[in-house]
Amino acid sequence: MVHWVKVLEWVLGVVAIIFIWYAIHDLKSVKKILIGRPLRTAELQSKHTKLLWFIALPILSADLYSSVSYGPESGLTELASLGQEAKWLIIPITLATIFLLGILILSYIMGILAYPNGGGAYAIAKDNFKPIWISLVASSSLLIDYILTVAVSISAAMEALVSAYHILAPYETVLAILCVTLLVIINLRGVAESARVLAWPTIGFMICMIVVIMAGFIDEFKYGFIKGSTPAIGTFPQDLSILLTLKAFSSACSALTGIETISNAVPVFREPQKKNAIKSYIALGVITAITLLGFSVHIFINGISVNPQNTMLSQLTSTYFGDGIIYQIIIWFTFIVLILAANSTFTGFSQLAAIVAADGFLPRGLLNRGDRLGYSNGIIVLASFACLLIISFNAHTNALIPLYAIGVFLSFTIAQFGLIRRWLKVKGNHWHLKLSVNIVGAVITTVVAIIFAVTKFMGGAWIVLMVLPVFIFFSLAIHRHYEEIAYELKLNPGTIPIAKNVLSIVLISGVHKVVNNTLSFAKSLNSDVIAVYVGFDDEAIKTMEHKWTEWGSPCRLICLKSKYRSLLEPLSRLIKVVEEKHEEKLIHILIPQFIPIKWWHHLLHNHSALMLRVWFLRHKDIAVTTVPFHLGK
Amino acid sequence: MVHWVKVLEWVLGVVAIIFIWYAIHDLKSVKKILIGRPLRTAELQSKHTKLLWFIALPILSADLYSSVSYGPESGLTELASLGQEAKWLIIPITLATIFLLGILILSYIMGILAYPNGGGAYAIAKDNFKPIWISLVASSSLLIDYILTVAVSISAAMEALVSAYHILAPYETVLAILCVTLLVIINLRGVAESARVLAWPTIGFMICMIVVIMAGFIDEFKYGFIKGSTPAIGTFPQDLSILLTLKAFSSACSALTGIETISNAVPVFREPQKKNAIKSYIALGVITAITLLGFSVHIFINGISVNPQNTMLSQLTSTYFGDGIIYQIIIWFTFIVLILAANSTFTGFSQLAAIVAADGFLPRGLLNRGDRLGYSNGIIVLASFACLLIISFNAHTNALIPLYAIGVFLSFTIAQFGLIRRWLKVKGNHWHLKLSVNIVGAVITTVVAIIFAVTKFMGGAWIVLMVLPVFIFFSLAIHRHYEEIAYELKLNPGTIPIAKNVLSIVLISGVHKVVNNTLSFAKSLNSDVIAVYVGFDDEAIKTMEHKWTEWGSPCRLICLKSKYRSLLEPLSRLIKVVEEKHEEKLIHILIPQFIPIKWWHHLLHNHSALMLRVWFLRHKDIAVTTVPFHLGK
Repeated sequence: MVHWVKVLEWVLGVVAIIFIWYAIHDLKSVKKILIGRPLRTAELQSKHTKLLWFIALPILSADLYSSVSYGPESGLTELASLGQEAKWLIIPITLATIFLLGILILSYIMGILAYPNGGGAYAIAKDNFKPIWISLVASSSLLIDYILTVAVSISAAMEALVSAYHILAPYETVLAILCVTLLVIINLRGVAESARVLAWPTIGFMICMIVVIMAGFIDEFKYGFIKGSTPAIGTFPQDLSILLTLKAFSSACSALTGIETISNAVPVFREPQKKNAIKSYIALGVITAITLLGFSVHIFINGISVNPQNTMLSQLTSTYFGDGIIYQIIIWFTFIVLILAANSTFTGFSQLAAIVAADGFLPRGLLNRGDRLGYSNGIIVLASFACLLIISFNAHTNALIPLYAIGVFLSFTIAQFGLIRRWLKVKGNHWHLKLSVNIVGAVITTVVAIIFAVTKFMGGAWIVLMVLPVFIFFSLAIHRHYEEIAYELKLNPGTIPIAKNVLSIVLISGVHKVVNNTLSFAKSLNSDVIAVYVGFDDEAIKTMEHKWTEWGSPCRLICLKSKYRSLLEPLSRLIKVVEEKHEEKLIHILIPQFIPIKWWHHLLHNHSALMLRVWFLRHKDIAVTTVPFHLGK
Repeated sequence: MVHWVKVLEWVLGVVAIIFIWYAIHDLKSVKKILIGRPLRTAELQSKHTKLLWFIALPILSADLYSSVSYGPESGLTELASLGQEAKWLIIPITLATIFLLGILILSYIMGILAYPNGGGAYAIAKDNFKPIWISLVASSSLLIDYILTVAVSISAAMEALVSAYHILAPYETVLAILCVTLLVIINLRGVAESARVLAWPTIGFMICMIVVIMAGFIDEFKYGFIKGSTPAIGTFPQDLSILLTLKAFSSACSALTGIETISNAVPVFREPQKKNAIKSYIALGVITAITLLGFSVHIFINGISVNPQNTMLSQLTSTYFGDGIIYQIIIWFTFIVLILAANSTFTGFSQLAAIVAADGFLPRGLLNRGDRLGYSNGIIVLASFACLLIISFNAHTNALIPLYAIGVFLSFTIAQFGLIRRWLKVKGNHWHLKLSVNIVGAVITTVVAIIFAVTKFMGGAWIVLMVLPVFIFFSLAIHRHYEEIAYELKLNPGTIPIAKNVLSIVLISGVHKVVNNTLSFAKSLNSDVIAVYVGFDDEAIKTMEHKWTEWGSPCRLICLKSKYRSLLEPLSRLIKVVEEKHEEKLIHILIPQFIPIKWWHHLLHNHSALMLRVWFLRHKDIAVTTVPFHLGK
């Protein structure tokens, strides 16, 4: 075990050295290495980024499928206090989860049929409900849940790793933060290119899971389906309540998050897009159901208990394979696929945030695409919040689970009701069938959402339910702000730019090249030019006046004395006087600035210019010009 | 004891509430409360800030006198491992320290006679040695030691507090940082005003020390000078080496730091300044010597041992007074006077830094005086480094001691040699006497500095000895930089500002009031105006062109397409073309900017303007104007 850690340390060490070498060599090239060459906007739509369905399937399913590694376990964790007698409940709970999975997939196929351009709950709600807050509930709860997905997946990945290498246990949080940072870098590189590469680990993980399940069945055929460790079935421990059962069920349902990914990503598929997307959904549903069921049957037969130091998947695998190379491979695939799940969330979050921002309900900055066409700000916002959660909950998956999934189910519910309204309005082929699917879906997701809210409320769901309305309130406030500004900035008909007289005020600190440069520029403009000097004592002012005369007084000079050693105070007094005296003139302040060759030379010079500029722009209707003078030329 | 802590909590709670209330009410008034009303530059020289000698004495002696509370203890800590047998060594070590104190005070009185305007080691070295690096060694080592003084004094203050209230032990570092923050606020308020108030605690502490020493003698007269706990005298433990004895001596000498304060502050005294300053020095020397000697005699007689949880002063006091009100008063005075010691260092550091900065060996920013005439940047730099040290050493005085005092003794030594050169050159009254005092001083401080470097090297002095040359190297580099720039900016004779033709480029994002405002300003200048629009796709460009025509094409419009969704790339291409085509023209870029009413509204808008401005100023010889448009008018 120490062996592996040492290797990891070496690898990290070498990477760090290479990195530092490049950083010293050239900062730009580091950016290129980390972020890749800039992509053209056109590449976003090019054909070769469109995916075959069996390539798209693993890419889009990492989020959903990876949850099998922690879903059943979080369900059983709720029942752990009841001991041996409650263990058999994993079977009915898993069956209920699979039933819900089926319903959701069917409903989402209806969603694809209705919105083949990739709807998502927000688009569906916006299309079918007038009050905008319904759409905002859908988008906000989904955005919040995306943040949780990153935190949960990364934490689960760390737990997989710690199961195999206990030595890493104290560093879980730090390693989790490192992983998030890595994902930020990968995602700033852009989505399309990385996607194809990322298909293989998910496929590998799927194969691993099938191998574990097959090994389980072979083992059971050999040694019998009832072992010494197999718990009794159908026993009801004294403390088992309906509430606790429902709580276990709702925790187990964390295995279903990420199901919406395919329906949001229909445009990513090759033609025929709808058909390919549906094909993917069905294949994914079947594989997930098999895995969940096989997994829980084997856990039941082997009577595996919850152990915070060792995940159930790790325990099950080591039952069949010991801790040799196969075990190692399975653990590493689990780790990687959970990281990929977090990775896919980055795309989901930043795209949804951009869509909502485009409608004016989130800051416009979320629309900015980076050099590699990923939504940079969205990526960074997501990562920051996820890190906050990871640190607050010490990267413990089971501590995060109570906050999780409620957002997803809220948005599922809204989407279902939206689709119901749509079928009633639009009708079309087989609309009765589609409608009934969505009615069933709506009823069930509503019930599940209520179960979530009730059972998980005290455990942490209250945080989500409290943040949600605040989030929506701010979204509406942002929208109002944008609308007000758009209204305010609208030009009245017939308004055109009109020239006025300008009074140019040049701030000077002495007689030297930088000042000469700025005065030359000021004199080139069609304006009256005044030079202004602020001195801290009479002597300084006298010296300045003398130098000015010696230079030949290139324009009028006003010397101000600052009693409080502040530049701002005498200047703002002057501006006030000028404003009153020359009401019809535009005031224009010119600030000479010399630009040192090395950026750190800035530390050696005063930054009064910057401060003055910010103050004048903020408080006065004054144009502020900075005239640079480059040193070393 | 819990009682006191509770009271403290209440007081802090109330202060916090008042503070928050004000913060909500008005940020400016908070600044006024914390920083006070701005002082005029003239107030700096006014008569009523000049101090009577017996007021100046406690103010200027906080640094030196407070060290009695930790000096003897750090000496004994070095010998703690030798057990009971080594305890009597406190007496000879203290005698040696007092001898050194006498020599230093005599030497510094010579310093005052030579430089009555407040010389300090830096000024003395600059006046007497040609190579500037000698002066820089003096100033840099003193600056480093000032930082250490703050860290050591605050840590010692915390240890005094923890001795009385063990419950605070885990919060030592946090409380230390809080104290530094408080000192920053006090010092940004300005020096002169606060000084007078700060005299009384030092006087109180002096009285406390005298009370403890008197109580000790009374106790000994009553119960005899040899107690059961009094250790044997003249025994030499097996492990006692000369090196260890010297190490203990050098640690005990940390009690002598701060001795230079009075000689630096002669101009603070009322006339006759020299005489008053010398009077203060002699009084201070006598009080300090009495305290050190009395303190160590009592420690010896009572056989007090080193205990990291309970300072020796606290142990001694509780021997005589228990832990009642007198003990509490003495502990609190110790605490306050140590905080004051750190406080006086703020003035010393920022004044010395400003003097060195004025000579161009440190960044000019250190010369900036704040609203209240304190050197704001120096205060903040000192506090930051002190906090760094406190955090690194967990606010443990004895861990910091090995780094401490070596800087002070280096600068002492340089000052002594400087004075020797001066007496040889200038001569004057009694110069033979003065010369011999400084020769004795120089020899002794040199020996002590060497003892420090050798005995404390492994313990931490190596850090100081490593940082020092780096510091000096940077000082010289900074000076070179300033000189180069001054040379480069010098105007050639006959150069005067010359007007040229200007080409104004207005960056626009659409047709609205902000753009109209900026175009109006551009048209008011005597220049050709071009509007430039950057679109991310053909559709956006077409829409823009249409809108422009509809508006009546107020000037020529150039539309650029950005392939990589970057604004910078197409604009810098355009600028390059313009530069080549219009070589004789000055290029002027105008950026429209709307200013929201609330500052946080900035978060909702893009900051491309800022980024563009920085880039153009950095890379091109282009004047950049920001034309503000204020919303809500």
